[in-house]
Amino acid sequence: MRKKLKELAEWVGGTVAGDGEVEISGVAAIEEAQPGDITFVANPKYLKMLDKTHATAIIVSPEIHQTDKPLLRVTNPNLAFTKILTLFSLKPYQPRGIDSNARISPTAQLGQDLSIYPFVYIGDHCRIGDRITLYPCVYIGEDSSIGEGSILYPNVSIYPRTVIGKRVILHSGVVVGSDGFGYVKEGRKNVKIPQVGTVEIEDDVEIGANTTIDRAALGKTIIRRGVKIDNLVQVGHNVVIDEDSILCGQVGISGSTKIGSNVTLAGQVGVVDHIKIGDNVTVGAQSGVMNDLPANQAYTGSPTLPHRDFLHMAAVLPKLPEIRKTLIQIEKRSKRIEEAISSERKGE
Amino acid sequence: MRKKLKELAEWVGGTVAGDGEVEISGVAAIEEAQPGDITFVANPKYLKMLDKTHATAIIVSPEIHQTDKPLLRVTNPNLAFTKILTLFSLKPYQPRGIDSNARISPTAQLGQDLSIYPFVYIGDHCRIGDRITLYPCVYIGEDSSIGEGSILYPNVSIYPRTVIGKRVILHSGVVVGSDGFGYVKEGRKNVKIPQVGTVEIEDDVEIGANTTIDRAALGKTIIRRGVKIDNLVQVGHNVVIDEDSILCGQVGISGSTKIGSNVTLAGQVGVVDHIKIGDNVTVGAQSGVMNDLPANQAYTGSPTLPHRDFLHMAAVLPKLPEIRKTLIQIEKRSKRIEEAISSERKGE
Amino acid sequence: MRKKLKELAEWVGGTVAGDGEVEISGVAAIEEAQPGDITFVANPKYLKMLDKTHATAIIVSPEIHQTDKPLLRVTNPNLAFTKILTLFSLKPYQPRGIDSNARISPTAQLGQDLSIYPFVYIGDHCRIGDRITLYPCVYIGEDSSIGEGSILYPNVSIYPRTVIGKRVILHSGVVVGSDGFGYVKEGRKNVKIPQVGTVEIEDDVEIGANTTIDRAALGKTIIRRGVKIDNLVQVGHNVVIDEDSILCGQVGISGSTKIGSNVTLAGQVGVVDHIKIGDNVTVGAQSGVMNDLPANQAYTGSPTLPHRDFLHMAAVLPKLPEIRKTLIQIEKRSKRIEEAISSERKGE
Repeated sequence: MRKKLKELAEWVGGTVAGDGEVEISGVAAIEEAQPGDITFVANPKYLKMLDKTHATAIIVSPEIHQTDKPLLRVTNPNLAFTKILTLFSLKPYQPRGIDSNARISPTAQLGQDLSIYPFVYIGDHCRIGDRITLYPCVYIGEDSSIGEGSILYPNVSIYPRTVIGKRVILHSGVVVGSDGFGYVKEGRKNVKIPQVGTVEIEDDVEIGANTTIDRAALGKTIIRRGVKIDNLVQVGHNVVIDEDSILCGQVGISGSTKIGSNVTLAGQVGVVDHIKIGDNVTVGAQSGVMNDLPANQAYTGSPTLPHRDFLHMAAVLPKLPEIRKTLIQIEKRSKRIEEAISSERKGE
Repeated sequence: MRKKLKELAEWVGGTVAGDGEVEISGVAAIEEAQPGDITFVANPKYLKMLDKTHATAIIVSPEIHQTDKPLLRVTNPNLAFTKILTLFSLKPYQPRGIDSNARISPTAQLGQDLSIYPFVYIGDHCRIGDRITLYPCVYIGEDSSIGEGSILYPNVSIYPRTVIGKRVILHSGVVVGSDGFGYVKEGRKNVKIPQVGTVEIEDDVEIGANTTIDRAALGKTIIRRGVKIDNLVQVGHNVVIDEDSILCGQVGISGSTKIGSNVTLAGQVGVVDHIKIGDNVTVGAQSGVMNDLPANQAYTGSPTLPHRDFLHMAAVLPKLPEIRKTLIQIEKRSKRIEEAISSERKGE
Repeated sequence: MRKKLKELAEWVGGTVAGDGEVEISGVAAIEEAQPGDITFVANPKYLKMLDKTHATAIIVSPEIHQTDKPLLRVTNPNLAFTKILTLFSLKPYQPRGIDSNARISPTAQLGQDLSIYPFVYIGDHCRIGDRITLYPCVYIGEDSSIGEGSILYPNVSIYPRTVIGKRVILHSGVVVGSDGFGYVKEGRKNVKIPQVGTVEIEDDVEIGANTTIDRAALGKTIIRRGVKIDNLVQVGHNVVIDEDSILCGQVGISGSTKIGSNVTLAGQVGVVDHIKIGDNVTVGAQSGVMNDLPANQAYTGSPTLPHRDFLHMAAVLPKLPEIRKTLIQIEKRSKRIEEAISSERKGE
């Protein structure tokens, strides 16, 4: 693909500074870019590379001037770069057809233009929408449905009665609908609580490799539209994650917890069961969330504190041994002072 | 299925208050229950819903009275609900037979009434008991055995020479018998220690999706009867987990550690290698266990403290910046006092 | 296999004390060893078992004398034991051939002496070296290459364009080349940044069960020669891990971070994005690395401290409630003293 810089500017709603007629044929990071490539600078520490890069044009924020290279000025260079990279890298969908080594129930309803690889299993009464890609060794249990345009990478397991929306991406090894972790003690023995609920994953959700989403005990586990989940994340039974929230790698959410919309949980965060995290909350890496978190704030720590309080606490933490020493010294000094005063009194 | 309330009361060892002749045809959470359903209240905060629920009958603890609805009174409503839910949801096992697209070694011994899906692989000399379900893409390495009534969900991998008991449930993506993580340095290079041991999983164990259980270096990794393990848990080589213990999501147990019976490790707990955790111990979420833990106690923290000590510590932690400020002020005051005393003395 | 003790001594570069003619036919841990076995003592606390073990010979460090049994003295008993265990347990590679139920693209280039199990999928233009073992349900996406002697256990997924070196071991459920976790916000919506880079895994790398290695956004994610990674580890996009480093179970590395050579990250360590960890660094279990770590040091904590500072801090942590109490008492005492002084002055 070849595009003129001015065409790209139009595509992303930006303006050109310099020669808008230069032709762009690829996209690369600033250090690896070659002639013909467009690159971008979002981080000010890369500004010094502006003149060194071999790129033909550079996407920058409006205040940047210092270069002779053609510039594409936009308010959000990251977003513009993403859109241009998508334009250059996205291949049009080519249906592969249905492999003869896939095992599809005769009662399954199949859409148009499918790509079903060998060793795929589709159970009874499943509904498979149009333009869906199922890679090798994907398992779809009975009575499940997958919306159009979704991609399930190899070795994904979808337990029965799961509902998956449109344009959903599930990376290799994802498990959706495994039994929630529910037992009740009878003496010392663990009696299994049947997990008879389901999972619903709405449109435009992407879930990372080897992440697991448990089915509800009763009712539904719900991942709402636009949620993005990284690798090796655990989502417990009856959890609800609201629209556009982001869960980074190795996060764990315990049963029945509700996560608001536009929330970000950084890597390795753990959240206990039956609590609520408000909309637009950000939780720092490795935090342990043990109580409801009100909306529109940042939190960090285990247990969590408001992020600023955590930073103050964390700054003092290494000084604890010194604090203890000082305290012991002061205690001795107080004693000496008290003795001094008391001996003076006696001496009166 | 339809049961009279009095029949259910008999089934769980409870008593009926109100009309024992009402017919129950389903089980639901209190907010979703419809006429014909039975529901339960274990948590006092749901008591106010007793009169609002559309359920036909409610399982409650003996002291509850405030409703006109038929009640089923039991000492443990959770357990009674679980038993009734199991009664209504458990379908009788229907053997599916052996799919022609499964690949089974001719030297494997197969039991009766099996359900073996396509793309299953069973290696040489395996022993597969009666009424076992192996979902698509399950791999069972040579010389392994699986006890009767066990269920292996899709994409489970059982390495060679693994022993699995009766009524064991392994969810999708579980790996049993992968090499333990053992190397010895020769200069900077990591030389692999061959992992020639095995894994033994006893009866009635359930293991969550994408959990990994490593084979022993020498000897055995052992998961004893009734242990329940959640998703994405790592169990290292030569670990022994005693009966009825519970490991929640994303727990990690390092090599050669022994976990007692009836232990609960909450989510994301990490345990170092070569230590012992005593029977009936509970460890709080995200804790890091670095030393032996004596039996019959609760611990939390990283490193762990007795749970009460942890709570006291955690309550003071956010006050650290204030403590430091106060300390600095007191230090100044002490100095002033000392100076005052010393100047008075001079003044005498 | 049977070897004389003196032959084994030669093999590992050690010396025999006692009868070098005794025949060794197996290898076992000191407690389980039987006549014919060789065992080893590396940990001094097992020295007392020297006379109790049924082993025929014992590998020890040079200073050990107290036993009548034949000894094999070496400077590093762990390493010698590993080499002898390898000698006894390693079976010569036997090619199994290519199963007729594997699905291999006609454009793939295949080496000699392969072992390809049923339900394996190999995409277009892949290059598969000699003596490679691909277990059932392994997926290798198009344009990938695998070096000679590598072993991919069941249900491993290799996304397209991945490069894997020689003698690499990937345990069950490993995912290599899944999309990195990259989005840019457009309003509240998460717009996916196409992940068009690749992954390169060099020779002699071993990766544990269900570990995930993401492909780069642009450029490469690189795992260098001799790196060993445990189970359930997450390696983000554009990460580089240098030679001979070790990542223990459930470690998570965020995007674009560079890990030096000969580094050890203990279990459940989390590392933020875009930082550098120097060569020969050791990071303690559950630590959270939030800044660059200079080389050749040990660190622990979240955020990390130099390991000794962490130990001092952790030792004081449980005393926090006591510290606070003492501080409050001292504050009161200071007030009393100040009042005493001031009343004396007034009294003058």
